[in-house]
Amino acid sequence: MSTNDKFYAINPSSNNQLEGEYTNATEAVIHSAVQKSKEAMAIYRKKDKDSIANFLDQVAQEILNLGDSLLERCRLETALPMARLQGERGRTINQLKLFASVVREGSWIDARIDTAIPERSPFPKSDIRHILQPLGPVAVFGASNFPLAFSVAGGDTASALAAGCTVVVKAHPAHPGTSELVASAIHKAISICGMPEGTFSLIQGNNNTVGKTLVKHPDIKAVGFTGSFGGGKALFDIANSRTEPIPVYAEMGSTNPVFILPKALREKTETIAIGMANSITLGVGQFCTNPGLTFIEESKEANKYFDYLATSLKDKPSGTMLSKGIKDAYEIGIENTLKIDGVEEMASGREAGISGQVAAKIFNTTFEKYSKSELLNEENFGPSNVVITSKSKEQILEAAKNLKGHLTATVHGMNEDFDNYKELFDILEQKVGRVIINGYPTGVEVCHSMVHGGPYPSTTAVQSTSVGTNAIKRFVRPICFQDFPESLLPSALHNSNPLNIWRLVNGELMKEEVV
Amino acid sequence: MSTNDKFYAINPSSNNQLEGEYTNATEAVIHSAVQKSKEAMAIYRKKDKDSIANFLDQVAQEILNLGDSLLERCRLETALPMARLQGERGRTINQLKLFASVVREGSWIDARIDTAIPERSPFPKSDIRHILQPLGPVAVFGASNFPLAFSVAGGDTASALAAGCTVVVKAHPAHPGTSELVASAIHKAISICGMPEGTFSLIQGNNNTVGKTLVKHPDIKAVGFTGSFGGGKALFDIANSRTEPIPVYAEMGSTNPVFILPKALREKTETIAIGMANSITLGVGQFCTNPGLTFIEESKEANKYFDYLATSLKDKPSGTMLSKGIKDAYEIGIENTLKIDGVEEMASGREAGISGQVAAKIFNTTFEKYSKSELLNEENFGPSNVVITSKSKEQILEAAKNLKGHLTATVHGMNEDFDNYKELFDILEQKVGRVIINGYPTGVEVCHSMVHGGPYPSTTAVQSTSVGTNAIKRFVRPICFQDFPESLLPSALHNSNPLNIWRLVNGELMKEEVV
Repeated sequence: MSTNDKFYAINPSSNNQLEGEYTNATEAVIHSAVQKSKEAMAIYRKKDKDSIANFLDQVAQEILNLGDSLLERCRLETALPMARLQGERGRTINQLKLFASVVREGSWIDARIDTAIPERSPFPKSDIRHILQPLGPVAVFGASNFPLAFSVAGGDTASALAAGCTVVVKAHPAHPGTSELVASAIHKAISICGMPEGTFSLIQGNNNTVGKTLVKHPDIKAVGFTGSFGGGKALFDIANSRTEPIPVYAEMGSTNPVFILPKALREKTETIAIGMANSITLGVGQFCTNPGLTFIEESKEANKYFDYLATSLKDKPSGTMLSKGIKDAYEIGIENTLKIDGVEEMASGREAGISGQVAAKIFNTTFEKYSKSELLNEENFGPSNVVITSKSKEQILEAAKNLKGHLTATVHGMNEDFDNYKELFDILEQKVGRVIINGYPTGVEVCHSMVHGGPYPSTTAVQSTSVGTNAIKRFVRPICFQDFPESLLPSALHNSNPLNIWRLVNGELMKEEVV
Repeated sequence: MSTNDKFYAINPSSNNQLEGEYTNATEAVIHSAVQKSKEAMAIYRKKDKDSIANFLDQVAQEILNLGDSLLERCRLETALPMARLQGERGRTINQLKLFASVVREGSWIDARIDTAIPERSPFPKSDIRHILQPLGPVAVFGASNFPLAFSVAGGDTASALAAGCTVVVKAHPAHPGTSELVASAIHKAISICGMPEGTFSLIQGNNNTVGKTLVKHPDIKAVGFTGSFGGGKALFDIANSRTEPIPVYAEMGSTNPVFILPKALREKTETIAIGMANSITLGVGQFCTNPGLTFIEESKEANKYFDYLATSLKDKPSGTMLSKGIKDAYEIGIENTLKIDGVEEMASGREAGISGQVAAKIFNTTFEKYSKSELLNEENFGPSNVVITSKSKEQILEAAKNLKGHLTATVHGMNEDFDNYKELFDILEQKVGRVIINGYPTGVEVCHSMVHGGPYPSTTAVQSTSVGTNAIKRFVRPICFQDFPESLLPSALHNSNPLNIWRLVNGELMKEEVV
């Protein structure tokens, strides 16, 4: 094993190496993790819903039991402030508990029963019964920007475990110590709940080979990923070139366009400017839903908006980004943006001059210049935003029509604006997974209705969400049983409805037993 | 335009050319069809559910209105007997009506509402509402083996139209005249129901270029296909190499293993043999769910089973296959099977000696020989079956474990068998989309619980079904609306529940209004 196989966590605030040595998983290590995952799957997939729900709750409890040492290590590895990490831990735990409640309630498995009609002519009708069942071992990639809520025990892991799938997580190399702590919590929950050991495994790696090897493994049946377009698309291509292609749920970020319509711009200029400055700089701009593009119409209020934005922004302190790699990419993005013909810097956050910290940047340009630049539609991960000034409603609508897929689109408007811009909503709902009115895209509610996804290139799987209870559907597939004796059917499909779940019986949704 | 751009329908019974000349769609024709489809989509996707349901019903009515001329042309193009075509027309019409009823009922769109909690701390909770919305223009490929039920107005078209998507069908070149007749019925329904003209288009083609060009078109957003592994996989690869990858629902057939367990073999030897002979030869074996592999344990009943099967089969008349290409491929498949070490012909249907007709063939071999042959796991489309004799339960289970993905698996057994072979069901449910007990895989019920799909290579989309009401889910994606005023929300999400559909309100399924 060469020294390249070892790596260390770096404190992004100081660039100092943190304690702990991590090893790139070898092919043998990866194979062993997946093999154990497959063996565990044979047992875990048959666990009853209460056992799985209790296990998810226990994972949440064990994460809490790690106490401040988890948050402290995470802060050192990510430079995220303590308050944010406390909030993120809360979200992580609530996600696990929400999936536990969904599993406990049980109706998510989409039980369907069509009863037999033996006397039907010309052919008798068989008894057919349907459920969703887990796909198999899932590979999950930890995200840089959510070291807790979208990493080891984050949304992808919670939804895969809830679906009855075992999980192999590839830790993000920027927070390997945090990852090991959370993995230890999951292992403790496995032990307490009597789940098979291979239900969960963590592998480490700071190169692409580890992840590729994992996705290529024939016993991995689905992939969850949150990160860059380059990373997600590479995994998608690998998964599709396997002997058996598998689904890849890659959430690859987007520029999350914001439209500020004329009357709202006129009547709420300052409020919206302050709100945008807050949203752009939240968490040093390190959110998949960070707003990167703003569309407004030329007007004297537009100039006022710029002033308020500049004022609000210059009080925003610079911030330390999650890693040197992310900071360097952000700064190159800023440089490249400034090189685009017709793009000017319009406002800046406070420059700290501290190594590792970056300031927020807002640029402006015209619709015409924007229309000529591919680059302006690409995400520059961090606290930057480009305001595009249009001459007319038609230009606004044209810009909307030319958008690629995004996670979100936001519209600020008043009733008069909504009447005038009806077409805009029609366009936007074809471009994104979530449309927000008079709000900000940062902040993704973990609930039943959330769609955190969208058309390509924001994700590789437009039909799914990675946040919210519907995320469980990513890791299952339908199966039906024809003319089975009840003793061989899963209990969800027994006539008496012992699980007391909603079922579609001969086309009617009910909880009643089948007679 | 070269003469290669023209083609003709051939009567597979006589090899004679039928009347009518068809033209391979040029790139310009394909582009125009997709362009019209996209324009129509802007209107069609906003149609209320009753309008779409009525339209589907009208398509069914117009197909009926074509009368016997449709069935007659179809018989000439496919050599399928009149009774089968009448049945298939019935299924086609019932599918359209079933989707109409699903759309009219309306709950399929998965309306979800999470209401706001403005006073929540530390952040207020937004109002978020979710539905499924159509993906966009869908490309559908007509299947050779279902000239009505899985072609122009077949399952894929019905489910895509039901989902609110416009459709461009690439007709199967073996039945271009049937395709044009059905297309005329759809166009008539479009006109009667006031749908936009581009809601449906038919394009013809007898080469791969037409289909590839269609799938590459940037305005096509999903693909439905039923046919060979080679064809489906090629479209899957094209779709994934597009600038914007899109989902491909390719149902590529399988060998549909059948397991006859010892006690059933002993006690129902003749019944099962007759049933298998019927299932293998049904429709000259031209079903995706035709049973191609049978697993039994060595015994004196196994020998009796062979005898009954041979007796039953030799009375089965030879049949004309759907096209010369299919017949040639089947005959080559038979030749290649016989070349495999240890495989012997065990029974044959009546040989007619009539050009274009083929006889059913049953082969036998041992578990050991089967385990060494990749070829025996591949589908030979037509009326053939390979019986694999095992020495033990362990060999049966090993064979099951080594299966790739199939549409179906069938088990014949009695209670004692089920007790002894519990593990078999556990294995099979991980290999297929539908498990059948004491029945036959041919005959796919169009209902709410049906899963006609399965793990790769039986399909490219393990999470979907191409038959049954759940097929509608293939052509939609989720979207959510955050803090929308009611006037901008789709009516499915209005507080008063004007569509009277089931909705998940703050996690509870209900039809009540939101207060």
